[in-house]
Amino acid sequence: MKRYLTELGEDRIIRGLEKSFAPKNPRVIKGIGDDTSVTAQDGGKLLLSTTDTLIEGTHFDLSYAPPGLLGKKALSISLSDIAAMGGEPLFFLVSIALTPKTKKEFIDALYRGIKEISEEFKVALAGGNTARAGLTMISTTVIGEVPKGKAVYRSGAREGHAIFVTGTPGDSALGLKVLQNHGYRAAVKGRFGKAVSRHLAPVPRMEAGSLLAKKGIARSMIDISDGVALDLKRVCVESNAGAEIYLKDFPVSAELKEYAERVKDRSWIDLALSGGEDYELLFTAPEADKKKISRLAERLKIRITPIGRITGKGLKILDENGRPMKLKRLGFEHF
Amino acid sequence: MKRYLTELGEDRIIRGLEKSFAPKNPRVIKGIGDDTSVTAQDGGKLLLSTTDTLIEGTHFDLSYAPPGLLGKKALSISLSDIAAMGGEPLFFLVSIALTPKTKKEFIDALYRGIKEISEEFKVALAGGNTARAGLTMISTTVIGEVPKGKAVYRSGAREGHAIFVTGTPGDSALGLKVLQNHGYRAAVKGRFGKAVSRHLAPVPRMEAGSLLAKKGIARSMIDISDGVALDLKRVCVESNAGAEIYLKDFPVSAELKEYAERVKDRSWIDLALSGGEDYELLFTAPEADKKKISRLAERLKIRITPIGRITGKGLKILDENGRPMKLKRLGFEHF
Repeated sequence: MKRYLTELGEDRIIRGLEKSFAPKNPRVIKGIGDDTSVTAQDGGKLLLSTTDTLIEGTHFDLSYAPPGLLGKKALSISLSDIAAMGGEPLFFLVSIALTPKTKKEFIDALYRGIKEISEEFKVALAGGNTARAGLTMISTTVIGEVPKGKAVYRSGAREGHAIFVTGTPGDSALGLKVLQNHGYRAAVKGRFGKAVSRHLAPVPRMEAGSLLAKKGIARSMIDISDGVALDLKRVCVESNAGAEIYLKDFPVSAELKEYAERVKDRSWIDLALSGGEDYELLFTAPEADKKKISRLAERLKIRITPIGRITGKGLKILDENGRPMKLKRLGFEHF
Repeated sequence: MKRYLTELGEDRIIRGLEKSFAPKNPRVIKGIGDDTSVTAQDGGKLLLSTTDTLIEGTHFDLSYAPPGLLGKKALSISLSDIAAMGGEPLFFLVSIALTPKTKKEFIDALYRGIKEISEEFKVALAGGNTARAGLTMISTTVIGEVPKGKAVYRSGAREGHAIFVTGTPGDSALGLKVLQNHGYRAAVKGRFGKAVSRHLAPVPRMEAGSLLAKKGIARSMIDISDGVALDLKRVCVESNAGAEIYLKDFPVSAELKEYAERVKDRSWIDLALSGGEDYELLFTAPEADKKKISRLAERLKIRITPIGRITGKGLKILDENGRPMKLKRLGFEHF
């Protein structure tokens, strides 16, 4: 049984959904197949909406995920989808399932976490509901806006575009590994504490996403939820294009470097290229825009690194010596 | 532990959420505390958004809920919230969790059910995601609209208003009882088959909700998700008012009547007044509008019955002889 869903894969399940529901409402400009849905409204802006769910046992483990950070993450990952469209968040809805064993302190901390992010990114709580369940679950829906003509889709990548990522993807997967091996307390204080934080409370790249869109720099964009390679593949599929990633150019954090030196094998590559949940942005832009992008990175005080280029077809990863290499898997497949 | 959440109650958890997140965005007109959130947008309409989650073991049992009907119900209950605001649905997002054991046939039937309702009520699928989890879960978010000044809130009930319900509340709870005792096959073909259908695939009262709002008839409105008494209490709390229900006027279906005759006790009253998941509408309107409401009911070919009136304070239920009576519980409390 397990095999069936594994073989099917999330992207194919979603495609099935998309196919059987060809959008018949002319106001739905973009349905399934991008970071958020895009719908027309009166005035000069498009409405963005996105929903995400964090489920105990699948997306987090209560033994190592403190409720405050869980609340932060739940909202941040939906905000990240708005960032990947180049939009601004407006308001959000939250649906929470709690077990009968849940303590008041847990609920309070969870809300505080959600609240912190909602204040940081100025996105108002508009509604929600709670239910009792056999496990803990947090579902967030964020509604946002983007000026007409400024939404950045997955489908805008063109041959010759350079591929960029913000931050240092792979840290979140490293953080998860450390959490699973050492538990929360040891992990967060340990040598890989930053990576652990990146996993437990990723920071959505709202300002970067919005500026890259407003300035017309990013031609295609996605947030890295399931790994650089898999999410880049999604961009390629939607753009009907291919891509090459140059490992020698890939931005690696000090912590991931240290991890690589310690384990003395090449498993860091899988973390960097196939580890999910970074919630960094991956976007493509003409080579000519590289300088603009450097300036933007400086201004925002974040790292933005070119890691490859868009080709005609296929997804190739070239190692430090420029030789094609294979990943164990492209990224996190939900089935 | 269990006691804590039970004592706290869902409404109090939601109030906690509401209090800690006073809406700071001037575009959020109505946050938590009504059927849907209401936000301003350009043009003459308000945006409505609502989210609901059906969780295995809490809201349904796969042993008696066929996936097709589950899909229908998941979307219908969110549509029902839009109806209770007097709005029209525009599009929806769906977030589905499936276990590794889920079969392709299950997924296909689930989608078909969602699709059927989406076509019936002309609401387009705009986005979604799927995840693997320890249990099956379907979360739906519906976005809708209502003309400015036409949204019907819970807070509009005034002393002297008559209280109305559509349909025959209690059928869903009766259906659930039969399903739990006899399983799907026997239940759906049995003597209480209609009640079983009401439970498994409730029909959102979209047209009634929208017309009651457009014509300015309903002054306050809610959909009955957790029982007539509890949902009426919510209207009273938001309106700072009280209410009386007259049992002698309460609309009882032929099946619930037959059930009452069979069991020869008064447990049907609990089903009618405290059984949840009817997704009928409860609304209040001035006595003077009773005729208009009868005509509307005729036109829509649904039953709309006056069941009581809004008072200054307190919630009173008067039995067939006009004597105050107590319910075992007001309705379905999630904790």
